Amino acid sequence: MPKKLLKNIYFPSDVRQLSPENLPKLAQELREFIIDVVATKEGHLGASLGVVELTIALHYVFNTPEDLLVWDVGHQAYGHKILTGRKGVFHTNRQFDGISGFPKRTESEYDTFGVGHSSTAISAALGMAIASQLQEIEKHHIAVIGDASIASGMAFEALNHAGDTNANLLVVLNDNAIGIDPSVGALKDYLTKIKSPRLEVEQHNIFEALNFDYSGPIDGHNLEELIIELERLKNVQGPKFLHVITTKGKGLQQAEQDQVKYHAPGKFDKISGNLLPKDASKYTKFQDVFGKTILELAQQNDKIVGITPAMLTGSSLKFMLEKFPERTFDVGIAEQHAVTLAAGMATQGLIPFCNIYSTFLQRAYDQVIHDVALQNLPVIFCLDRAGLVGEDGATHHGVFDLAYLRCIPNLIVFAPRNEIELRNIMYTAQLGLEHPIAIRYPRGTGKLEHWQLPFEKIKIGKGTCLKEGNQLAVLSIGTIADNVSEAINQLENNEAVAHYDLRFVKPLDTQLLDIIFNTLDKIITIEDGTICGGFGSAVLGYASEVNYKGNIQLLGIPDEFIHHGTIQQLQEICGIDTTSIKNTIQDLL
Amino acid sequence: MPKKLLKNIYFPSDVRQLSPENLPKLAQELREFIIDVVATKEGHLGASLGVVELTIALHYVFNTPEDLLVWDVGHQAYGHKILTGRKGVFHTNRQFDGISGFPKRTESEYDTFGVGHSSTAISAALGMAIASQLQEIEKHHIAVIGDASIASGMAFEALNHAGDTNANLLVVLNDNAIGIDPSVGALKDYLTKIKSPRLEVEQHNIFEALNFDYSGPIDGHNLEELIIELERLKNVQGPKFLHVITTKGKGLQQAEQDQVKYHAPGKFDKISGNLLPKDASKYTKFQDVFGKTILELAQQNDKIVGITPAMLTGSSLKFMLEKFPERTFDVGIAEQHAVTLAAGMATQGLIPFCNIYSTFLQRAYDQVIHDVALQNLPVIFCLDRAGLVGEDGATHHGVFDLAYLRCIPNLIVFAPRNEIELRNIMYTAQLGLEHPIAIRYPRGTGKLEHWQLPFEKIKIGKGTCLKEGNQLAVLSIGTIADNVSEAINQLENNEAVAHYDLRFVKPLDTQLLDIIFNTLDKIITIEDGTICGGFGSAVLGYASEVNYKGNIQLLGIPDEFIHHGTIQQLQEICGIDTTSIKNTIQDLL
Repeated sequence: MPKKLLKNIYFPSDVRQLSPENLPKLAQELREFIIDVVATKEGHLGASLGVVELTIALHYVFNTPEDLLVWDVGHQAYGHKILTGRKGVFHTNRQFDGISGFPKRTESEYDTFGVGHSSTAISAALGMAIASQLQEIEKHHIAVIGDASIASGMAFEALNHAGDTNANLLVVLNDNAIGIDPSVGALKDYLTKIKSPRLEVEQHNIFEALNFDYSGPIDGHNLEELIIELERLKNVQGPKFLHVITTKGKGLQQAEQDQVKYHAPGKFDKISGNLLPKDASKYTKFQDVFGKTILELAQQNDKIVGITPAMLTGSSLKFMLEKFPERTFDVGIAEQHAVTLAAGMATQGLIPFCNIYSTFLQRAYDQVIHDVALQNLPVIFCLDRAGLVGEDGATHHGVFDLAYLRCIPNLIVFAPRNEIELRNIMYTAQLGLEHPIAIRYPRGTGKLEHWQLPFEKIKIGKGTCLKEGNQLAVLSIGTIADNVSEAINQLENNEAVAHYDLRFVKPLDTQLLDIIFNTLDKIITIEDGTICGGFGSAVLGYASEVNYKGNIQLLGIPDEFIHHGTIQQLQEICGIDTTSIKNTIQDLL
Repeated sequence: MPKKLLKNIYFPSDVRQLSPENLPKLAQELREFIIDVVATKEGHLGASLGVVELTIALHYVFNTPEDLLVWDVGHQAYGHKILTGRKGVFHTNRQFDGISGFPKRTESEYDTFGVGHSSTAISAALGMAIASQLQEIEKHHIAVIGDASIASGMAFEALNHAGDTNANLLVVLNDNAIGIDPSVGALKDYLTKIKSPRLEVEQHNIFEALNFDYSGPIDGHNLEELIIELERLKNVQGPKFLHVITTKGKGLQQAEQDQVKYHAPGKFDKISGNLLPKDASKYTKFQDVFGKTILELAQQNDKIVGITPAMLTGSSLKFMLEKFPERTFDVGIAEQHAVTLAAGMATQGLIPFCNIYSTFLQRAYDQVIHDVALQNLPVIFCLDRAGLVGEDGATHHGVFDLAYLRCIPNLIVFAPRNEIELRNIMYTAQLGLEHPIAIRYPRGTGKLEHWQLPFEKIKIGKGTCLKEGNQLAVLSIGTIADNVSEAINQLENNEAVAHYDLRFVKPLDTQLLDIIFNTLDKIITIEDGTICGGFGSAVLGYASEVNYKGNIQLLGIPDEFIHHGTIQQLQEICGIDTTSIKNTIQDLL
């Protein structure tokens, strides 16, 4: 039996000791290593399997970490992590205190730029290349970006700038025709055309039009071809573009066949590839509550349209797509466009539900202010993955939304406490609101078995009392109410503690607050968002307006970036888990 | 003498009564009308002069307002306003209670979409076109966008989506090779190439690659050619792209020759075109304090680079460009890229000053969080036009920045009280900070004659006492301190009032606040930003932490969109002018 190569590989310098003919074997071992670990530890599988050869070739040809390699998004960087000093800790991937699922500067000098959100790599690598040029340092700068990411506006901005420079920048397009869902858009069709063997590659394709030295497309699983081409490109001056064709999930048959499911498949059998049964939950994911409800509403109201920037599956908008393809829009990784498209539709009487993960709405902040709220257009934003998201970590937590949305005039900001509330606010919103609304809800499941009850209208700006109490009031927003309820239940003297769900961060239920302020002099606010400027801050603002003299304590995400771990672990760090809440209440009583 | 045509034109339906041969004369009259009014009332001149013929042609060919016309940015929409019912009020342009300088939905049914920020038109018009299609309404949807705006990522996202639909969308590229400053980027070079008569237009240009039916380039000042082509395009199915070449400032010789200066020239002689002398101010604009200071610092520190997204002149970064072209980067209308480019540069030891208007940083919010703050890279953001900007109105006020930046971990947020403070914080920042910093300062001049004093280092997170007092403290941030000082001076019992400049919204000077909280039980906070989540909100947050029981009243921009007028008028509306502040203090004493 041949000696295992990967066993003796710790760093790229070890890879560079191998002869070229050994690299395919290393690729096979690396692929197996990834599959072995991800099969039991979970993580992003497909993207990393697709770039095994590319990863080896890049580290073989370029002198990393001196040469600077930037991975876009980072779902595909597992092979990179394993070859750059983290083989021994790769089994801790995405776990609390383990390595991050994404490249991260504080983790390794080989991770030249922290990523997570898409389409940043070309800008970052260009910045590095210009810095080298100005400082007269000779090195290479490589951005590896997927075909879904390169269609995002930010990537175009970077290409447009780079093409106007003579920076030593190599953009590698990892073209597998899929992001998390299959890629969309005219550029994707164009890429399909230029890689078709029947059509001669045009002399001036888009990338050449933008002044890049374009080469390819080449087979991204052919190490020999990759290495020859990368070696050649080392000697090409200025901005260069290498178009590489890969197969997402390469090497695991089922992952190749069902690329959406195997993007992040959970646990699976490493031999057969079969997915292992997940812990059966009797509860429904909030994303599915959204997906099923919008379908139900769309059946009744033909003005409803659904928009997602490349999260058809993640948002469960795919349920609507299946039934109403002509009213369902996956616009690709294009949050800015998604929001203003929705605004345009709203001007003509459609009712757009624009579903964007909370963390990704940061990409369309100006459009929410300038195109939607300023014009007071009744767009319905559904912000999935709000609050702490767990293993995806700091790049993906949706913890700033309440703060950055609260300062926008005209906007209604709502957080459902449970599945029924999400369902009913969606129903209420499509009946017609005088303002745009942002509805933010978490990753994961709720806690209700029966939530598909008849729709009820929610009164805008009205909170609700969940429990009376005579000494202290806890004011919560969203699903963190569950932790509060549990904490109160665990208290011996729980008759002292009132619990209110304010529901709306904006408009705030000032009538309800007046009642609370008039009867209780101790208040705790709690939210799964930053305490700087969010829900608690809104309560403080109103308290100062009416000269409330009681104590108000704010619980929420502290003013720091929270890393990865289970949601329970992260809640403990932030002091918003059940036990911490209980202790805070007891201290105040 | 021929009868005046414009006199009898009130709406586009009147234009459509004219015979084609009369249209050039209407164009001449319309151009004169614009020049006459803008010469005395000021405004954006060059862009509107450039599209006089295009404006007439569009309203002549299309059945506005049934057909939907979206102007990108809106600097060029003066002719549109004059022909669509606002000729008689055009002299109130940009004035308080007058018409807006930009298209605005509440102003006219012909203004189909409110604009101000660039690159939104294609998304909005596509949304409208899809809405028509779904509702089976036959109408045309036209987006008019400039060559600087179309290079922004958002516009690319919209093109990429539109090309994948069969929506009835016409994109008119108004290509004059300039935004406010000359256009930049590889796409601009490409546009130059394809409009060169020597090169045959390639069969598959970029827009055709994105699946648009491309035509042009045609002469945008030739009404006959425009009308023939627009008529033809009315019958072309699906997404269409018309490339029109215009001259910014067309018809006023000096405006054609100095297109940057005549973008918004102030008052000028309508015959000669000569600019009239502005009220001579002995004071310096904050933008020039920035521009001169960065140049001075760059001379001493060769790690400094300057970045602007298309605001070389407006930011006064042009001073640095003249001296250090290789270290000065105008990346075009590409705020997202600008920020992440800066982050990439910072990883390699450069010291990037990234100058972005406060309102436009909203476009790069995610990049500030995800690429800069999360990685704690010491990028120096200089946010010009912060606070109320006056006549540009709701789309351009920089009033959300303190709120949306305060919730970002790791970020330092500073607002200089005067020119010296701006200068010194820039000096301090380039010495090396442990964190990124946002420095926000207003439009217009300061009030110091002598500000180019020797640099002094500012201590991060330290506020300062401007005036002692024994009953009430006013805490201010930034240049609004001037209003506070004046208000206090006008008070009879001004020994009662203390005035503190906190300088840093983040980190807050809690030591100073402790002293204030311990001695005074009445506090007013004041900022020229939203009171929802900004500086006052930060003070409330700390007050609740330490259980301060005094009264805190927040002054700032209320939770609504503020429209256009002079800064004084708008400050009065917000209650942050000198008199309002004085009255608020008196009421509290």
